[in-house]
This record gives sequence, C-alpha cells and structure tokens, in this order.
Amino acid sequence: MLSFENDYSEGAHSRILKRLVSTDLQQVTGYGNDPFCEEARIRIRQAIGVPDADIYFLSGGTQTNQVVIDTMLKPYEGVIAAETGHVSVHEAGAIEYSGHKVLTVPMHNGGKVNPMEVKNLIEDFYQDGNHEHMVFPGMLYISQPTEYGALYTRRELEALSLICRKYKIPLYLDGARLGYALASHENNVTLSDIARLTDVFYIGGTKVGALCGEALVFTKHNTPPHFVTQIKQHGALIAKGRLLGIQFAELFRDNLYYKLGQNAIETAEMLKMVLHEKKYSFYFESPTNQQFVIIDNRKMEALRQKVVFSYMQKYDDTHSVIRFCTSWATKPEQVFRLAELL
Amino acid sequence: MLSFENDYSEGAHSRILKRLVSTDLQQVTGYGNDPFCEEARIRIRQAIGVPDADIYFLSGGTQTNQVVIDTMLKPYEGVIAAETGHVSVHEAGAIEYSGHKVLTVPMHNGGKVNPMEVKNLIEDFYQDGNHEHMVFPGMLYISQPTEYGALYTRRELEALSLICRKYKIPLYLDGARLGYALASHENNVTLSDIARLTDVFYIGGTKVGALCGEALVFTKHNTPPHFVTQIKQHGALIAKGRLLGIQFAELFRDNLYYKLGQNAIETAEMLKMVLHEKKYSFYFESPTNQQFVIIDNRKMEALRQKVVFSYMQKYDDTHSVIRFCTSWATKPEQVFRLAELL
Amino acid sequence: MLSFENDYSEGAHSRILKRLVSTDLQQVTGYGNDPFCEEARIRIRQAIGVPDADIYFLSGGTQTNQVVIDTMLKPYEGVIAAETGHVSVHEAGAIEYSGHKVLTVPMHNGGKVNPMEVKNLIEDFYQDGNHEHMVFPGMLYISQPTEYGALYTRRELEALSLICRKYKIPLYLDGARLGYALASHENNVTLSDIARLTDVFYIGGTKVGALCGEALVFTKHNTPPHFVTQIKQHGALIAKGRLLGIQFAELFRDNLYYKLGQNAIETAEMLKMVLHEKKYSFYFESPTNQQFVIIDNRKMEALRQKVVFSYMQKYDDTHSVIRFCTSWATKPEQVFRLAELL
Amino acid sequence: MLSFENDYSEGAHSRILKRLVSTDLQQVTGYGNDPFCEEARIRIRQAIGVPDADIYFLSGGTQTNQVVIDTMLKPYEGVIAAETGHVSVHEAGAIEYSGHKVLTVPMHNGGKVNPMEVKNLIEDFYQDGNHEHMVFPGMLYISQPTEYGALYTRRELEALSLICRKYKIPLYLDGARLGYALASHENNVTLSDIARLTDVFYIGGTKVGALCGEALVFTKHNTPPHFVTQIKQHGALIAKGRLLGIQFAELFRDNLYYKLGQNAIETAEMLKMVLHEKKYSFYFESPTNQQFVIIDNRKMEALRQKVVFSYMQKYDDTHSVIRFCTSWATKPEQVFRLAELL
Repeated sequence: MLSFENDYSEGAHSRILKRLVSTDLQQVTGYGNDPFCEEARIRIRQAIGVPDADIYFLSGGTQTNQVVIDTMLKPYEGVIAAETGHVSVHEAGAIEYSGHKVLTVPMHNGGKVNPMEVKNLIEDFYQDGNHEHMVFPGMLYISQPTEYGALYTRRELEALSLICRKYKIPLYLDGARLGYALASHENNVTLSDIARLTDVFYIGGTKVGALCGEALVFTKHNTPPHFVTQIKQHGALIAKGRLLGIQFAELFRDNLYYKLGQNAIETAEMLKMVLHEKKYSFYFESPTNQQFVIIDNRKMEALRQKVVFSYMQKYDDTHSVIRFCTSWATKPEQVFRLAELL
Repeated sequence: MLSFENDYSEGAHSRILKRLVSTDLQQVTGYGNDPFCEEARIRIRQAIGVPDADIYFLSGGTQTNQVVIDTMLKPYEGVIAAETGHVSVHEAGAIEYSGHKVLTVPMHNGGKVNPMEVKNLIEDFYQDGNHEHMVFPGMLYISQPTEYGALYTRRELEALSLICRKYKIPLYLDGARLGYALASHENNVTLSDIARLTDVFYIGGTKVGALCGEALVFTKHNTPPHFVTQIKQHGALIAKGRLLGIQFAELFRDNLYYKLGQNAIETAEMLKMVLHEKKYSFYFESPTNQQFVIIDNRKMEALRQKVVFSYMQKYDDTHSVIRFCTSWATKPEQVFRLAELL
Repeated sequence: MLSFENDYSEGAHSRILKRLVSTDLQQVTGYGNDPFCEEARIRIRQAIGVPDADIYFLSGGTQTNQVVIDTMLKPYEGVIAAETGHVSVHEAGAIEYSGHKVLTVPMHNGGKVNPMEVKNLIEDFYQDGNHEHMVFPGMLYISQPTEYGALYTRRELEALSLICRKYKIPLYLDGARLGYALASHENNVTLSDIARLTDVFYIGGTKVGALCGEALVFTKHNTPPHFVTQIKQHGALIAKGRLLGIQFAELFRDNLYYKLGQNAIETAEMLKMVLHEKKYSFYFESPTNQQFVIIDNRKMEALRQKVVFSYMQKYDDTHSVIRFCTSWATKPEQVFRLAELL
Repeated sequence: MLSFENDYSEGAHSRILKRLVSTDLQQVTGYGNDPFCEEARIRIRQAIGVPDADIYFLSGGTQTNQVVIDTMLKPYEGVIAAETGHVSVHEAGAIEYSGHKVLTVPMHNGGKVNPMEVKNLIEDFYQDGNHEHMVFPGMLYISQPTEYGALYTRRELEALSLICRKYKIPLYLDGARLGYALASHENNVTLSDIARLTDVFYIGGTKVGALCGEALVFTKHNTPPHFVTQIKQHGALIAKGRLLGIQFAELFRDNLYYKLGQNAIETAEMLKMVLHEKKYSFYFESPTNQQFVIIDNRKMEALRQKVVFSYMQKYDDTHSVIRFCTSWATKPEQVFRLAELL
C-alpha cells in the first residue's frame, strides 16, 4: 500500500548499500576508529567548514539527544526546549531518565522557540528568590526543522546563539531531518551557519537516506571528557562503527545528502499543491517535508484503507490531525497516486 | 529581627522538646521500629480513621515527595502536577533526578489543578497516535494547602479522586502544611476525607511545629514492596527513628497538631486585616498561613531593614511579590509589631 | 593487515546484504512492527521451539543488557554475575548508570559462575541480619559462551535454572556470541534448552555475521510492561526496525546462523593447533572462537607489526595476555598466514 | 531490656537537648544559613585546624555518602572501597542508585583497604586494553573506624593520601563513628591529620551523641558547584538547619565530642575484658566501640531473651557472628549487668 507515513519507510539510498557491499570484507577496527568513520569525518568537516570539529556517530535520534544532553549538562541543570520539542514529548522520558528536567517555553510558528521567551526564562530564574531550589537552565535545545517542519531563519539562530553565549549555556541543534531544512526554498541557514552558531548539533541520517545513524558534531572543542566511555555507559556505542561511517562517508560525497533533501522538498511541494487543490485545511503547512492536515474522522477512516499516513492527535470531536511525509525516496508518481486517492 | 519569612523559623513546640528530654535515655531499636514510632502510628491511624494504614516517617518534604513518586511510579510513568506544584519547580529537579517526568497542567486559584484538565491530559495521552513514545501519566500530585496557601474543597478532592480511580493512577497529597489547611475557616476537608479520597499522603511536621519530619500514610494497602529498603536506597532512612516517632506521637496527642494550625490561622487572619488596612495589594490572599503581596521595590527595600519576609519573584519593573508567613509559633504581638512597621 | 582482533572486523554475511538490497524500496512501518521483523520472529520461534516467545530487536549487546536488566529488576534489586562478566567490567558502568548494582561471584573455568556460589550468595543474603539494608539479588546473568569463550554444559544450566526458580529470580543469558557456542564440538546445549532453562536471553547478531543487532527473547510470557516505551526511554529504539528484522530473518533462514558459527569454530580449531605447534602458552584455551595467549612483551611488539590482535591485560612484568579471535568471516588462508607469522 | 544493639539506641546528650530547648523560639533563617550552623562551622574549623574549610550538615550517613560520592565523581567514574565498606554492602545500593559503581578491593584487618591494592587497581585499570569500556576509578572511600571498628594508622592514611594525589582522585573518609576512633587508645590520627590527608570527610553525629546529623567537611576548596542545590536535588536539604547546627555547635564546644568518644571506649574496654573472661571467641576484637563475637546458636537464642545485641551473619552451621556495641551513653553498670548475663 502507498505510504506517506513518515520519512523512514524505505531502507537506504542505493549508493550507501553499494558501498556497504563493496567494503564488506575489509577488516577494520571497531567502535568508530575505522577508516570509514574517519573518511566521513573529513567530509563532514569540509561540509560544515570546521576543520577541527569533533565528530561521533550514534545510531538514533533519541539516543543522541539523551547522550548529548546528559553528558553536556551539569547534574543540577536542565535543558530548555519548546513545549513541542522532541525531547519534551516524544522520547518517552529519555531525558528525565538521565536525571535532567526539560524546562519548556511555549512554541510558536510550527514548533519554534522565541528568543525573548528563552531570555526571560533564564533571567527570571536568576532573579527568583528561590532559584537555589530550582533546576538551573543549562542548555538550549532546538530542532531544525522543528517537529512540525518549520525552519529557523539565520536571524533567529543568531538571536538564540547570542542569548546562549551571554548566559554561557550551549546551544544544541537537533538535525534529525536537517537535510530537509537545507534543501527547503525558505531556508537561509547553511551547515556553516549552524556550525558557527551552535555549540553542538547532529546531522540526521536515519530520516535522510541512511539505514540508521546520526552524525554528532562538536564545533567548539567542547566534547565531554572520555566521551566514548560515556557513550558506552549509555548503551549507545556501536561495535561495527563502519556501518555508520560508511553511510555518512557516502551521504557526504558528491552532495548526496543535499540531493536527498531536494527530492523530499520537491515532492513535498507537489503534495502541498495537491492538498490545496483538494481543499484540505492545514493544521500546519511547512516549508519542509512534513505536512499536517485537519481531516474529518469519517473521511480519515476511508482514506486509511488506501494510503498510509500518521495519525497525530484529536483536533475536535469530529476531526483529527494527520501527517503526510515525503522523503528522500518519494517518487513523483507516488504523489500522483495520492492525488487520485484524496 | 522580627520575622515572617516562613513557617520553619523556630524550633519545635515545647511539648515535643519535653518529650524528647523525658525519653532521652530509653534504649530503643532503630530505623522506625521503636515504640515511639508505633505510638505515633496508632495515634495517626485514629486521627485519620484508618486502622490499618501503613505509616512511615521521613525527615523532609522534598525527600518524601521523591521517595513516594519514585517508588510508586513505574519507570515509564510520570507524575501529573500543577505547573506551580512544589515538585514541578522548587525541588531542584529531585523528581527528574529519580528518573521521572513531571507532567504539568495549568494552575488555578492559587496553585490548584482543575479536574477537567487532569482528565483531558490523561485522555489526550491515550488518544495520541504516538503515546507509546511518550511518558505515561502514572500519578496525580496535589498539595493541600497549595504552594500559595489555597485549599481544595471536598468536592474538588472527590472529583480528582474519581478521575484517578477511573484511570487507575494513585492520588498523592502533599501535606507539608496540612495543619494549616485543617484549621482554616474555609476548609471542609477532614483527615478522614483525605485518607479516603487519596491513595497516599503525608502529614507535614517540619512546617507545623516539629524540628523535622513528615508522616507518610498509605491508606489502601499499597505500600511499595520492601519500602524500608527503598527508603534506605534514597538515603532517606533515619537511624534514630525515635526522633521522628516522638514528635508525631506528641503532635497527635490531645489535638496538638490542630491547635498549632489554629494559631497560624488566627494570626494569619490578623495579618490579612493589617495588610488590608494598610492598603497592600495581594498577589494571592490565601485562607491559610501564607499571604502574597505585591510591593513597590523601594518600599520593599525599606521594609527589609525592619522585618524578614520572603522575596518571591519580580512582578513588574518596579514591583515585586513578597510573602508573609505566620506559623504555629507566631504570637499576636508579632503581628502588632509588624502592623506598626508596615 | 591481517586481523584476528575480534569477531566484528568485517561487515555482514553476503546474504544479509543481498536481502537489504532486494527489499530496499519496500515501504514498511517503523519501530519493529514491519513484516521483516515478523518474519524473523517466526523463524526464531521455530529455531528455539517456543511458538509464543516474545522477541524484540536491539542494536548492541551492552544496550540489550542495560535494557533487560533495568526493566526486569525491581528498583531495589541487583543482578548476580561473574566477576569477569561483561556487565561487571566491560560496559563502562551501564548497569549502575541504570541504578542497579552488579553482585559478583568468583569466576571459574574461563568465566563461568558456580551454581553453589550463586545459591550461597542468595541464601547468605536472606540470612543476613542487615539484609533490609542491602541490595536484593534479583536476577542471574550468565554469558554463553563466556567472555573467555567457555561453555556451560546443559547440566550446569539446569543447576542454575533450578536455583533461579527456587528463589524466583529470572535467569538471563547473554548470547552475544551464541552462534559460536552452538557450533562448538564441546557444546551440548541447544537453543531449545536455552529457551526452556532461561527466562530471557539474546541471540547475538553483531558478532555473528550481522552489521548490528541482537534478538532479545522472552520465553515465559514475562516481557516487562510497555516494553517498547521502555526501550525508547533507554534511547534504544531503532526507527528502521527493518534493518534488524531483515538481518535476523536471513540469519535464521536455512541454518545460516549455525553455519556462520561453524566457520568460526573450524578456523578456531586450526588456530589452536597452530598455537600449540608454535608452543604458545594459553591463558585460556577455549572451545569456541576466542583464544587467550600469554606472550612475552618483546615478542608481542614484534608481532604487532604484522597482525592485529587484542591486547587484554598485563600478565606479569615481562608478559601480557593477548587474544586471537576467529569469526564467521575467517578464511582458512588467514590462519595459514598467521601460522607463518607466529 | 538491656541493650548493646548499637550506638544509636538512646536520644542525644543532655547538653544538646538543653541547647535545643534554650534556643527554641529564636527566629532564624533556614537551610543551613542560620547562626547556629555558623557557630558549629567555626568550632569545627578550629577543631580540625582548617580556617577556610567548607562545612555542610546532612541528616544521615548513607545520605551523606550518596551526596558526596555522586556530586564529586564524574558520571563515568566509580568509587573504590573495601568489599566490606558501608557503601559497598549496607546502603541498599544508594551509590548505584545515583549511577556510580563501587569498585571493590579486598578488606584486611577488620575492614581496611591496603594501599598497594588500591594502587594496583588504579594502575591495572589504566593498563587494561579495554579501559575505555570500563568504569574509571574516581575516588577512594574509607571509613575511620571501619565497619568492624578497626583504625587506620597515620602512616596508612598518609600512604592512601599519597596514592590519591598521585592519581588525582579525592580521598573521602566516612567518619560515622569518628568520635570513637579519636578516643581509642590505639589511635594516632588527629582531626587535623584527617583534614590534611583527605579531600573530604564527615564527622558523624548520629552515632556519637546527636539525635541525627553529620558534618561534612571539604578541606581543599573543592566543594562541588551549587552544592546546596545538589543537596536539595538528592532530597537531603533540611529546612530547619538549626537542628543540625545546634547539635554540632554543642558537640564541638568544650570537647564534648571527644568526651562522648571516651565514654564509649572506656566501656568498650570493660566489655572486652568481660568477653575475654567469659571465654568468648572474637570474630573481630576492635580498638573502638564495636566487638564482634562468634557464638553458639543455642547460646545466642538464650542470650537474646535477656539482652539486645545485633545478629550479623551466619558463621557456620552451628555458630553465628553477633555484635556488642558501647556508645557515648553506655554506663559501666550496664556492662556489669551484661557480665552477669553472659
């Protein structure tokens, strides 16, 4: 059945599989110390314009968030995030499991945090008469694109970066779908901008054409001490690091990562046109690959027989919010078929 | 200097000290298995009308909250609380330290949760398409009186209790200042009501006339397994349990706990009258022993030279919120002196 | 350079890669609910002879151990393991990170626990006058083969199983290298035996021909509640579950898993012969694929120039313990070449 | 019934109770910022000879150990302790609950660690080929007197201190019964020695004449950041800090702490004489206030009817190990009565 359920429904881009096959019997050492990881690091450093960035590969997004936040925060600190941030709601409490509170600010415009509200949260904290009995704001978490597919502009990122530097807390950018941000027509933030403005970020592979894997980048000589040991302690160290290294080496060769993003954006633009034509009303229409639609419950049930999408939440007693996703693998024909079904 | 800073500025009621002195050289066993703890348990069981309640004594409120919430929740569950709940903001992340998320609902009328909003949070959770990736609502935390001194009515407690039973999650009542609720003119909730309507609650000693100590009550044969071991694991097991037992044995003899509450309420009523006379504007005027006042910053600085109060937070650029507290130990003369200073 | 460093130096068996390629663009749902995972589950259930076993796929061994131990233990319980057990020493404290103590017993005969010593540990605990202040023994962890390649006999497993049942604690078997146990000439324990005698175990993929992945099997209707949520909370839920499902579907088709084990054992037997011929002295000579050799330090340095092996630990001032590993991918020619170099 | 069960069977020394009574209605601020805590700090600084020591008061020993170890260790570090150390066995896993492994060394001579074995553990760790996958040794925990009442000599402490400095890990001394060490005839270690040779230690109150309370001393400007917040986060911050401050102010006035120790030692010496006369065989005969005796099980049951002691553990099928404790409160008459019963 046709599926627009998410951006991880297929396997991996064929070039990745080819490279896995062609290198299969080379004997290399484990735990990320192999030449493929090194090749990937070199390419990513070039792509972000930071020759001395520290780069590690982990297998999934929640895992990466948990490891980064837990190892970069002091024990008495929490992470600031939008109330809709992935770390706030959709990680089953993985951050709290690691001992840290998520300090939420309201979300705006599809999941973004407002720099003024972040500033106020920090300043209110330090002015509070009881702040010694409260969780210290120790990091700002944002996602680009957000969980609803929205984009921070360079201006907005600069404002957030400024605040973080003023209060000496790291700015962490979750790039689970970063490829789809980079390729968006509305985007004006480059990988170099991100490397410059944030303190740590990850480039998502799982949702952008890899079988699994996220590339975690520390750009300010700020890798937590004994980081490999800390990854291991979190159960997150992959023995065959080659699996992750090969995939990112390939994703960052010949602009593959950007091209995969472009495919998702182009098919998403087609999808948006179709949804408009068919008079669907948007819960959030994003400039990236996720589109959120409000749909009558009976219509939803009928549609469910013909196409896979994601049910998000109740909208009102007779309507629901559902999500259609395009991806690196979506073909225009698939959008045409969806158009017929809608 | 005269102080209305809080309700734990003095030591303990003289009867408690006398009993500590008179029993001092009796040799008893440790860890809460002594005859004083047993005496206290018997009296508390009588006071709450539950002959088979399980009762444990811990030394402080945050500690009690952490132990109760961590041992009663499943690992994948969080606790629902008002956004202003003590566990949400003023425990330095003690709940998250134990691995659990605090799921917040808006606060109303001085820190209370609204039963409908609690119900909606739970139902929205179960209807969410991604709830398998979210923290399960596993307990409801309320405080009586609330952090702002407000009181739940019996009706409200019944509504909350009903919801908790429907969704099979325990209702936990933090009674750090329970004595001041029980004695309030606006109160219509008895200890028996609380024992009946909640699943677990604690009767606060630290803020109501004891040197330290909270009496934790399980009313539904629902004590977590090996609870003493779990208390020990949290670093919360007091070797000389007698210190806690003696205090509660005394607090629950001859209605002392209620009388201490009454003193705080009577002096609080006097204080409220004074504040009204002096045209202070209230941030929150409570029916219990804490009164929150909005004050001009210059006036606040002047007042600070003569009397101790609690600075709470910024109100606007020229005003602050401060708190005056009466307690079991407040004397009418102290209120008169404050009246002169205001 | 020739490598006998470990059993995860190569990628994956070619049949796995072929299947990844051939299924790549099939759209399937995520998080282990895809048809490939289901296919793998069906095959594994057949192989172990338990039609209703619950099976989950995780990406690595330490991760699996952390998730199993943390979700199956009560908070006040610890896990019994050999002092040389992987969870005791080589997981960077991942078990303690999750809040649980590892209770160690001495190791015997290449890393095995002695049933009597396990029994004594449990009985001594319950007889201890202070056991309420101690960590409860809540699970027994063993590895088959052990960290030194040794094998439990069926008799030994039966004895351990009996003790666990008597004291009502689960028996957990870490099968990171299970394929190499199953194929050993000295082995008399089948997958069915393991399924019958343990309460939970995992079948290792990472070290036996997969790119990554371990198949976790609950054989007694004893899966922890909301297990997917708990996996997510540990940062261990893979979005593209297909990656794991496809690999295990293939490993358990046409006896591939056993054949991969056989290759490692056959080449290990050749390797042992070579080591004996060359008069190497064994630190531990195992019936599986890992061989531990005591070597003069100067000789070790010379050898290091020509072949990769694992340095384990200091033996004495002039000698070290090193390890040679064969694997699913080792070719007889590689052993011949090693023979020339030794 | 006569009791030699432990050293916390009575309440507090009468001077402490008197001071609690005489200061009861003085209004002071909370959380350890009161003048009584300050008075106690001044006296303790004089007693230990470190004018700028940082001193905090906590309510119990396990709590103090958990807070110190968790806040001073890096997340990837564990604490070295004797296998019989309190943190190893009798804290219900409180250290592991906080995420840290206890790395054990064998115990010698009544619970002491051997400097060479500590050194070897650290050096073996750094030489291990896999140490990146292991828990880093990050602190040394010792107790003075030990759990069996033994004493480190100044020489031994110097040796341990030297090793800790060489490897840059803090030396932490648990002084739950420190008063009994200081007063022992065999002791040659002063408070100043401890302050100089360790990095952090605590002076026990609970077991030496206080109702509760331990004084935690950082002697090297090495208090963990935002320590009050971290204490709060562990549920260990006492609101009425005065309760702890008053007790330690009194214990450290006019040498009371030493005198209490002397009483326990003098009565312990009498007790040892009695035990020798009655031909009891010692499991461990200590130079402090705890004496461990091997006793026939039938004799033990008979004795149990007449005097309270602590059952420790099984010795063999017909014998047990029991403990007799003297304390600050033991009267010679009590030892005479015991002599008659034995």
